[in-house]
Amino acid sequence: MQNVKIVLASSSPRRRELLGIFGLPFDCVPAVGEEKTEGYASCEALTEGLARQKALEVAAKADGDTVVIGSDTLVELDGAKLGKPRDEEDAFRMLRALSGRTHRVCTGLCCVRGAAVLSGVEITEVVFRELSDGEIRAYIASGEPMDKAGAYGIQGKASLFVEGIRGDYFTVMGLPLCRLGTMLKELGVELL
Amino acid sequence: MQNVKIVLASSSPRRRELLGIFGLPFDCVPAVGEEKTEGYASCEALTEGLARQKALEVAAKADGDTVVIGSDTLVELDGAKLGKPRDEEDAFRMLRALSGRTHRVCTGLCCVRGAAVLSGVEITEVVFRELSDGEIRAYIASGEPMDKAGAYGIQGKASLFVEGIRGDYFTVMGLPLCRLGTMLKELGVELL
Repeated sequence: MQNVKIVLASSSPRRRELLGIFGLPFDCVPAVGEEKTEGYASCEALTEGLARQKALEVAAKADGDTVVIGSDTLVELDGAKLGKPRDEEDAFRMLRALSGRTHRVCTGLCCVRGAAVLSGVEITEVVFRELSDGEIRAYIASGEPMDKAGAYGIQGKASLFVEGIRGDYFTVMGLPLCRLGTMLKELGVELL
Repeated sequence: MQNVKIVLASSSPRRRELLGIFGLPFDCVPAVGEEKTEGYASCEALTEGLARQKALEVAAKADGDTVVIGSDTLVELDGAKLGKPRDEEDAFRMLRALSGRTHRVCTGLCCVRGAAVLSGVEITEVVFRELSDGEIRAYIASGEPMDKAGAYGIQGKASLFVEGIRGDYFTVMGLPLCRLGTMLKELGVELL
Protein backbone atom coordinates (compact mmCIF):
# COMPACT_ATOMS: atom_id res chain seq x y z
CA MET A 1 0.00 0.00 0.00
CA GLN A 2 1.06 3.55 -0.81
CA ASN A 3 2.02 5.82 2.08
CA VAL A 4 -0.68 8.35 1.34
CA LYS A 5 -3.65 8.81 3.65
CA ILE A 6 -7.12 8.68 2.07
CA VAL A 7 -9.94 10.87 3.40
CA LEU A 8 -13.54 10.72 2.22
CA ALA A 9 -15.12 14.17 2.74
CA SER A 10 -18.58 12.71 3.36
CA SER A 11 -20.78 11.29 6.09
CA SER A 12 -22.85 9.20 3.64
CA PRO A 13 -22.93 5.54 4.69
CA ARG A 14 -23.40 4.58 1.03
CA ARG A 15 -20.24 6.40 -0.10
CA ARG A 16 -18.34 4.85 2.81
CA GLU A 17 -19.57 1.38 1.81
CA LEU A 18 -18.54 1.93 -1.82
CA LEU A 19 -15.04 3.16 -1.01
CA GLY A 20 -14.78 0.22 1.41
CA ILE A 21 -14.98 -2.24 -1.53
CA PHE A 22 -11.26 -1.82 -2.15
CA GLY A 23 -10.10 -2.81 1.32
CA LEU A 24 -7.84 0.22 1.79
CA PRO A 25 -7.90 2.17 5.05
CA PHE A 26 -9.55 5.60 4.89
CA ASP A 27 -11.09 8.19 7.20
CA CYS A 28 -14.43 9.96 6.84
CA VAL A 29 -14.28 13.71 7.52
CA PRO A 30 -17.46 15.46 6.39
CA ALA A 31 -17.17 19.07 5.23
CA VAL A 32 -19.06 21.40 7.59
CA GLY A 33 -18.89 24.72 5.75
CA GLU A 34 -22.01 26.28 4.25
CA GLU A 35 -22.59 25.03 0.69
CA LYS A 36 -22.42 27.83 -1.86
CA THR A 37 -25.01 27.01 -4.50
CA GLU A 38 -25.23 30.36 -6.31
CA GLY A 39 -23.79 31.01 -9.75
CA TYR A 40 -23.92 27.47 -11.13
CA ALA A 41 -25.79 27.26 -14.44
CA SER A 42 -26.61 23.53 -14.38
CA CYS A 43 -26.88 20.44 -12.20
CA GLU A 44 -23.56 19.31 -13.66
CA ALA A 45 -21.80 22.54 -12.69
CA LEU A 46 -23.48 22.63 -9.27
CA THR A 47 -22.58 19.08 -8.24
CA GLU A 48 -19.01 19.47 -9.47
CA GLY A 49 -18.78 22.80 -7.64
CA LEU A 50 -20.12 21.34 -4.39
CA ALA A 51 -17.78 18.34 -4.67
CA ARG A 52 -14.88 20.80 -5.05
CA GLN A 53 -16.05 22.89 -2.08
CA LYS A 54 -16.23 19.79 0.14
CA ALA A 55 -12.89 18.32 -0.93
CA LEU A 56 -11.02 21.64 -0.75
CA GLU A 57 -12.43 22.50 2.70
CA VAL A 58 -11.35 19.16 4.15
CA ALA A 59 -8.00 19.21 2.30
CA ALA A 60 -7.21 22.65 3.78
CA LYS A 61 -7.29 21.09 7.26
CA ALA A 62 -5.49 17.86 6.35
CA ASP A 63 -1.92 17.28 7.42
CA GLY A 64 0.85 15.30 5.72
CA ASP A 65 0.37 13.48 2.46
CA THR A 66 -3.38 13.11 2.11
CA VAL A 67 -5.77 12.54 -0.78
CA VAL A 68 -9.24 13.97 -0.13
CA ILE A 69 -12.30 12.76 -2.05
CA GLY A 70 -15.39 14.98 -2.29
CA SER A 71 -18.65 14.09 -3.97
CA ASP A 72 -22.12 15.56 -4.38
CA THR A 73 -25.27 14.06 -5.92
CA LEU A 74 -28.48 15.57 -7.30
CA VAL A 75 -31.52 14.08 -8.97
CA GLU A 76 -32.93 16.14 -11.85
CA LEU A 77 -36.33 15.78 -13.50
CA ASP A 78 -37.49 18.17 -16.24
CA GLY A 79 -34.84 20.66 -15.18
CA ALA A 80 -36.00 20.66 -11.54
CA LYS A 81 -33.59 19.51 -8.83
CA LEU A 82 -34.80 16.93 -6.32
CA GLY A 83 -32.87 16.86 -3.06
CA LYS A 84 -33.70 14.90 0.08
CA PRO A 85 -37.44 14.94 0.93
CA ARG A 86 -38.56 17.24 3.76
CA ASP A 87 -41.22 14.80 4.97
CA GLU A 88 -43.29 11.83 3.81
CA GLU A 89 -45.62 13.95 1.67
CA ASP A 90 -42.63 15.48 -0.07
CA ALA A 91 -41.27 11.96 -0.68
CA PHE A 92 -44.66 10.94 -2.11
CA ARG A 93 -44.68 13.95 -4.42
CA MET A 94 -41.16 13.16 -5.69
CA LEU A 95 -41.82 9.45 -6.29
CA ARG A 96 -45.15 10.26 -7.98
CA ALA A 97 -43.23 12.61 -10.31
CA LEU A 98 -40.54 9.99 -11.07
CA SER A 99 -43.11 7.23 -11.84
CA GLY A 100 -43.03 6.05 -15.47
CA ARG A 101 -40.36 8.62 -16.34
CA THR A 102 -36.64 8.87 -17.03
CA HIS A 103 -34.64 11.21 -14.81
CA ARG A 104 -30.96 12.14 -14.50
CA VAL A 105 -28.64 11.66 -11.56
CA CYS A 106 -25.60 13.97 -11.50
CA THR A 107 -22.69 13.20 -9.22
CA GLY A 108 -19.79 15.64 -9.02
CA LEU A 109 -16.44 14.26 -7.92
CA CYS A 110 -13.29 16.03 -6.76
CA CYS A 111 -9.95 14.57 -5.63
CA VAL A 112 -7.30 16.75 -4.01
CA ARG A 113 -3.67 15.87 -3.20
CA GLY A 114 -1.58 18.83 -2.15
CA ALA A 115 -1.80 21.42 -4.90
CA ALA A 116 -3.28 18.97 -7.42
CA VAL A 117 -7.07 19.29 -7.78
CA LEU A 118 -8.99 17.06 -10.19
CA SER A 119 -12.75 17.24 -10.64
CA GLY A 120 -15.49 16.13 -12.97
CA VAL A 121 -19.09 15.04 -13.12
CA GLU A 122 -20.85 11.82 -14.12
CA ILE A 123 -24.45 11.68 -15.33
CA THR A 124 -26.62 8.58 -15.33
CA GLU A 125 -30.16 8.29 -16.66
CA VAL A 126 -32.57 6.21 -14.59
CA VAL A 127 -35.81 4.74 -16.00
CA PHE A 128 -38.62 4.20 -13.48
CA ARG A 129 -41.57 1.94 -14.30
CA GLU A 130 -45.11 3.13 -13.57
CA LEU A 131 -45.77 3.07 -9.82
CA SER A 132 -49.13 2.78 -8.10
CA ASP A 133 -49.95 5.05 -5.15
CA GLY A 134 -50.07 1.92 -2.98
CA GLU A 135 -46.54 0.94 -3.95
CA ILE A 136 -45.26 4.45 -3.23
CA ARG A 137 -46.96 4.46 0.20
CA ALA A 138 -45.55 1.00 1.01
CA TYR A 139 -42.09 2.16 0.00
CA ILE A 140 -42.30 5.31 2.12
CA ALA A 141 -43.52 3.22 5.08
CA SER A 142 -40.26 1.21 4.80
CA GLY A 143 -38.41 4.40 5.84
CA GLU A 144 -35.92 4.08 3.00
CA PRO A 145 -36.64 7.32 1.07
CA MET A 146 -36.17 9.89 3.79
CA ASP A 147 -32.40 10.55 3.72
CA LYS A 148 -31.94 10.16 -0.04
CA ALA A 149 -31.86 12.61 -2.96
CA GLY A 150 -34.97 12.01 -5.08
CA ALA A 151 -36.52 9.99 -2.21
CA TYR A 152 -35.22 6.61 -3.35
CA GLY A 153 -32.29 4.24 -2.92
CA ILE A 154 -31.50 2.28 -6.09
CA GLN A 155 -29.50 -0.26 -4.07
CA GLY A 156 -32.45 -0.91 -1.74
CA LYS A 157 -36.14 -1.62 -2.15
CA ALA A 158 -36.43 0.95 -4.95
CA SER A 159 -34.58 -1.60 -7.10
CA LEU A 160 -38.14 -2.82 -7.75
CA PHE A 161 -38.96 0.53 -9.42
CA VAL A 162 -35.96 0.84 -11.76
CA GLU A 163 -36.35 -0.80 -15.17
CA GLY A 164 -32.87 0.18 -16.21
CA ILE A 165 -30.19 2.84 -16.30
CA ARG A 166 -27.86 4.38 -18.86
CA GLY A 167 -24.49 5.22 -17.35
CA ASP A 168 -22.59 4.29 -14.22
CA TYR A 169 -24.61 2.60 -11.47
CA PHE A 170 -22.38 3.92 -8.67
CA THR A 171 -23.04 7.48 -9.82
CA VAL A 172 -26.65 6.88 -8.75
CA MET A 173 -25.44 5.60 -5.36
CA GLY A 174 -23.34 8.76 -4.96
CA LEU A 175 -19.73 7.84 -5.81
CA PRO A 176 -18.71 7.12 -9.44
CA LEU A 177 -16.14 4.37 -8.81
CA CYS A 178 -14.69 3.99 -12.32
CA ARG A 179 -14.08 7.73 -12.60
CA LEU A 180 -12.74 7.81 -9.03
CA GLY A 181 -10.22 5.07 -9.84
CA THR A 182 -8.96 7.01 -12.87
CA MET A 183 -8.66 10.27 -10.90
CA LEU A 184 -6.86 8.64 -7.97
CA LYS A 185 -4.44 6.94 -10.38
CA GLU A 186 -3.58 10.36 -11.82
CA LEU A 187 -2.79 11.42 -8.26
CA GLY A 188 -0.59 8.36 -7.68
CA VAL A 189 -3.04 6.22 -5.70
CA GLU A 190 -4.03 2.72 -6.89
CA LEU A 191 -7.32 1.25 -5.64
CA LEU A 192 -6.58 -2.23 -7.04
CA MET B 1 -46.71 -11.11 5.16
CA GLN B 2 -48.36 -13.56 2.78
CA ASN B 3 -48.55 -17.21 3.81
CA VAL B 4 -46.57 -18.41 0.83
CA LYS B 5 -43.07 -19.83 1.25
CA ILE B 6 -40.34 -18.37 -0.97
CA VAL B 7 -37.52 -20.57 -2.27
CA LEU B 8 -34.51 -19.32 -4.23
CA ALA B 9 -33.27 -22.13 -6.46
CA SER B 10 -29.66 -20.99 -6.30
CA SER B 11 -26.51 -21.24 -4.20
CA SER B 12 -25.16 -17.87 -5.38
CA PRO B 13 -24.31 -15.60 -2.45
CA ARG B 14 -24.99 -12.59 -4.67
CA ARG B 15 -28.52 -13.71 -5.53
CA ARG B 16 -29.16 -14.46 -1.85
CA GLU B 17 -27.93 -10.99 -0.89
CA LEU B 18 -30.17 -9.34 -3.51
CA LEU B 19 -33.32 -11.22 -2.49
CA GLY B 20 -32.42 -10.40 1.12
CA ILE B 21 -32.92 -6.66 0.42
CA PHE B 22 -36.66 -7.07 0.96
CA GLY B 23 -36.47 -8.51 4.46
CA LEU B 24 -38.78 -11.45 3.69
CA PRO B 25 -37.85 -14.94 4.86
CA PHE B 26 -36.77 -17.36 2.12
CA ASP B 27 -34.85 -20.62 1.71
CA CYS B 28 -32.06 -21.39 -0.73
CA VAL B 29 -32.41 -24.78 -2.45
CA PRO B 30 -30.02 -25.11 -5.40
CA ALA B 31 -31.09 -27.30 -8.31
CA VAL B 32 -28.82 -30.33 -8.67
CA GLY B 33 -29.99 -31.86 -11.96
CA GLU B 34 -27.75 -31.81 -15.01
CA GLU B 35 -28.25 -28.62 -17.02
CA LYS B 36 -29.59 -29.29 -20.51
CA THR B 37 -27.95 -26.73 -22.78
CA GLU B 38 -28.75 -28.26 -26.20
CA GLY B 39 -31.34 -26.86 -28.57
CA TYR B 40 -31.23 -23.22 -27.50
CA ALA B 41 -30.57 -20.83 -30.37
CA SER B 42 -29.33 -17.82 -28.35
CA CYS B 43 -28.00 -16.69 -24.98
CA GLU B 44 -31.46 -15.30 -24.25
CA ALA B 45 -33.17 -18.64 -24.93
CA LEU B 46 -30.46 -20.59 -23.07
CA THR B 47 -30.53 -18.51 -19.87
CA GLU B 48 -34.33 -18.49 -19.80
CA GLY B 49 -34.32 -22.26 -20.42
CA LEU B 50 -31.81 -22.91 -17.63
CA ALA B 51 -33.74 -20.65 -15.23
CA ARG B 52 -36.87 -22.70 -16.03
CA GLN B 53 -35.03 -26.00 -15.53
CA LYS B 54 -33.76 -24.88 -12.13
CA ALA B 55 -37.07 -23.48 -10.89
CA LEU B 56 -39.15 -26.42 -12.15
CA GLU B 57 -36.77 -29.00 -10.64
CA VAL B 58 -36.91 -27.38 -7.21
CA ALA B 59 -40.67 -26.70 -7.46
CA ALA B 60 -41.31 -30.39 -8.20
CA LYS B 61 -39.90 -31.27 -4.77
CA ALA B 62 -41.50 -28.37 -2.88
CA ASP B 63 -44.43 -28.99 -0.58
CA GLY B 64 -47.36 -26.73 0.31
CA ASP B 65 -47.78 -23.24 -1.09
CA THR B 66 -44.34 -22.31 -2.39
CA VAL B 67 -43.00 -19.84 -4.91
CA VAL B 68 -39.71 -20.96 -6.46
CA ILE B 69 -37.35 -18.48 -8.14
CA GLY B 70 -34.80 -19.73 -10.69
CA SER B 71 -32.21 -17.61 -12.46
CA ASP B 72 -29.26 -18.12 -14.81
CA THR B 73 -26.66 -15.64 -16.05
CA LEU B 74 -24.30 -15.63 -19.04
CA VAL B 75 -21.85 -13.08 -20.37
CA GLU B 76 -21.73 -12.80 -24.16
CA LEU B 77 -19.06 -11.11 -26.26
CA ASP B 78 -19.16 -11.20 -30.09
CA GLY B 79 -21.59 -14.12 -29.95
CA ALA B 80 -19.28 -16.18 -27.69
CA LYS B 81 -20.49 -17.19 -24.24
CA LEU B 82 -18.24 -16.54 -21.25
CA GLY B 83 -18.96 -18.69 -18.21
CA LYS B 84 -16.87 -18.93 -15.03
CA PRO B 85 -13.11 -19.03 -15.69
CA ARG B 86 -11.39 -22.43 -15.39
CA ASP B 87 -8.21 -20.92 -13.93
CA GLU B 88 -6.31 -17.65 -13.68
CA GLU B 89 -5.09 -17.76 -17.27
CA ASP B 90 -8.65 -18.27 -18.46
CA ALA B 91 -9.72 -15.27 -16.34
CA PHE B 92 -6.91 -13.22 -17.89
CA ARG B 93 -8.00 -14.21 -21.39
CA MET B 94 -11.64 -13.22 -20.65
CA LEU B 95 -10.77 -9.84 -19.07
CA ARG B 96 -8.31 -9.06 -21.88
CA ALA B 97 -11.17 -9.74 -24.34
CA LEU B 98 -13.64 -7.53 -22.42
CA SER B 99 -11.17 -4.59 -22.16
CA GLY B 100 -12.30 -1.49 -24.05
CA ARG B 101 -15.39 -3.29 -25.35
CA THR B 102 -19.14 -3.50 -24.76
CA HIS B 103 -20.55 -6.94 -23.89
CA ARG B 104 -23.98 -8.28 -23.02
CA VAL B 105 -25.11 -9.94 -19.82
CA CYS B 106 -28.21 -12.16 -20.16
CA THR B 107 -30.07 -13.29 -17.05
CA GLY B 108 -32.99 -15.66 -17.43
CA LEU B 109 -35.60 -15.63 -14.68
CA CYS B 110 -38.37 -18.10 -13.85
CA CYS B 111 -40.94 -18.03 -11.05
CA VAL B 112 -43.15 -21.04 -10.30
CA ARG B 113 -46.16 -21.25 -7.98
CA GLY B 114 -48.12 -24.49 -8.32
CA ALA B 115 -49.13 -24.82 -11.95
CA ALA B 116 -48.29 -21.20 -12.78
CA VAL B 117 -44.91 -20.79 -14.49
CA LEU B 118 -43.65 -17.34 -15.53
CA SER B 119 -40.32 -16.78 -17.22
CA GLY B 120 -38.39 -14.19 -19.16
CA VAL B 121 -34.96 -12.79 -19.80
CA GLU B 122 -33.26 -9.45 -19.18
CA ILE B 123 -30.30 -8.18 -21.15
CA THR B 124 -27.91 -5.48 -20.00
CA GLU B 125 -25.01 -4.03 -21.97
CA VAL B 126 -21.81 -3.35 -20.03
CA VAL B 127 -19.09 -0.97 -21.24
CA PHE B 128 -15.54 -1.74 -20.03
CA ARG B 129 -12.82 0.88 -20.24
CA GLU B 130 -9.39 -0.08 -21.61
CA LEU B 131 -7.51 -2.22 -19.07
CA SER B 132 -3.75 -2.64 -18.77
CA ASP B 133 -2.28 -6.11 -18.28
CA GLY B 134 -1.07 -4.96 -14.86
CA GLU B 135 -4.59 -4.01 -13.80
CA ILE B 136 -5.96 -7.35 -14.97
CA ARG B 137 -3.23 -9.23 -13.06
CA ALA B 138 -3.87 -7.17 -9.91
CA TYR B 139 -7.60 -7.87 -10.19
CA ILE B 140 -7.04 -11.62 -10.63
CA ALA B 141 -4.67 -11.60 -7.63
CA SER B 142 -7.58 -10.24 -5.53
CA GLY B 143 -9.33 -13.59 -6.09
CA GLU B 144 -12.57 -11.91 -7.12
CA PRO B 145 -12.92 -13.21 -10.72
CA MET B 146 -12.77 -16.95 -10.14
CA ASP B 147 -16.39 -17.87 -9.34
CA LYS B 148 -18.04 -15.33 -11.67
CA ALA B 149 -19.35 -15.52 -15.23
CA GLY B 150 -17.08 -13.40 -17.45
CA ALA B 151 -14.45 -13.37 -14.66
CA TYR B 152 -15.64 -10.16 -13.02
CA GLY B 153 -17.98 -8.89 -10.31
CA ILE B 154 -19.52 -5.52 -11.15
CA GLN B 155 -20.41 -4.97 -7.48
CA GLY B 156 -16.80 -5.53 -6.39
CA LYS B 157 -13.40 -4.27 -7.48
CA ALA B 158 -14.37 -4.59 -11.17
CA SER B 159 -16.52 -1.50 -10.57
CA LEU B 160 -13.27 0.28 -11.48
CA PHE B 161 -13.45 -1.25 -14.99
CA VAL B 162 -17.08 -0.44 -15.87
CA GLU B 163 -17.66 2.96 -17.48
CA GLY B 164 -21.38 2.41 -17.65
CA ILE B 165 -24.23 0.05 -18.42
CA ARG B 166 -27.45 0.13 -20.44
CA GLY B 167 -30.19 -1.85 -18.72
CA ASP B 168 -30.81 -3.24 -15.27
CA TYR B 169 -27.80 -3.35 -12.93
CA PHE B 170 -29.09 -6.33 -10.96
CA THR B 171 -29.28 -8.36 -14.17
CA VAL B 172 -25.47 -8.11 -14.23
CA MET B 173 -25.33 -9.29 -10.60
CA GLY B 174 -27.53 -12.29 -11.51
CA LEU B 175 -31.07 -11.47 -10.37
CA PRO B 176 -33.17 -8.82 -12.21
CA LEU B 177 -35.03 -7.34 -9.25
CA CYS B 178 -37.53 -5.08 -11.07
CA ARG B 179 -38.61 -7.94 -13.33
CA LEU B 180 -38.69 -10.32 -10.34
CA GLY B 181 -41.00 -7.97 -8.44
CA THR B 182 -43.40 -7.81 -11.38
CA MET B 183 -43.42 -11.61 -11.82
CA LEU B 184 -43.94 -12.30 -8.13
CA LYS B 185 -46.79 -9.80 -8.03
CA GLU B 186 -48.50 -11.71 -10.85
CA LEU B 187 -48.16 -14.80 -8.64
CA GLY B 188 -49.68 -12.99 -5.65
CA VAL B 189 -46.48 -12.21 -3.74
CA GLU B 190 -45.54 -8.61 -2.80
CA LEU B 191 -41.87 -7.81 -2.11
CA LEU B 192 -42.63 -4.33 -0.79
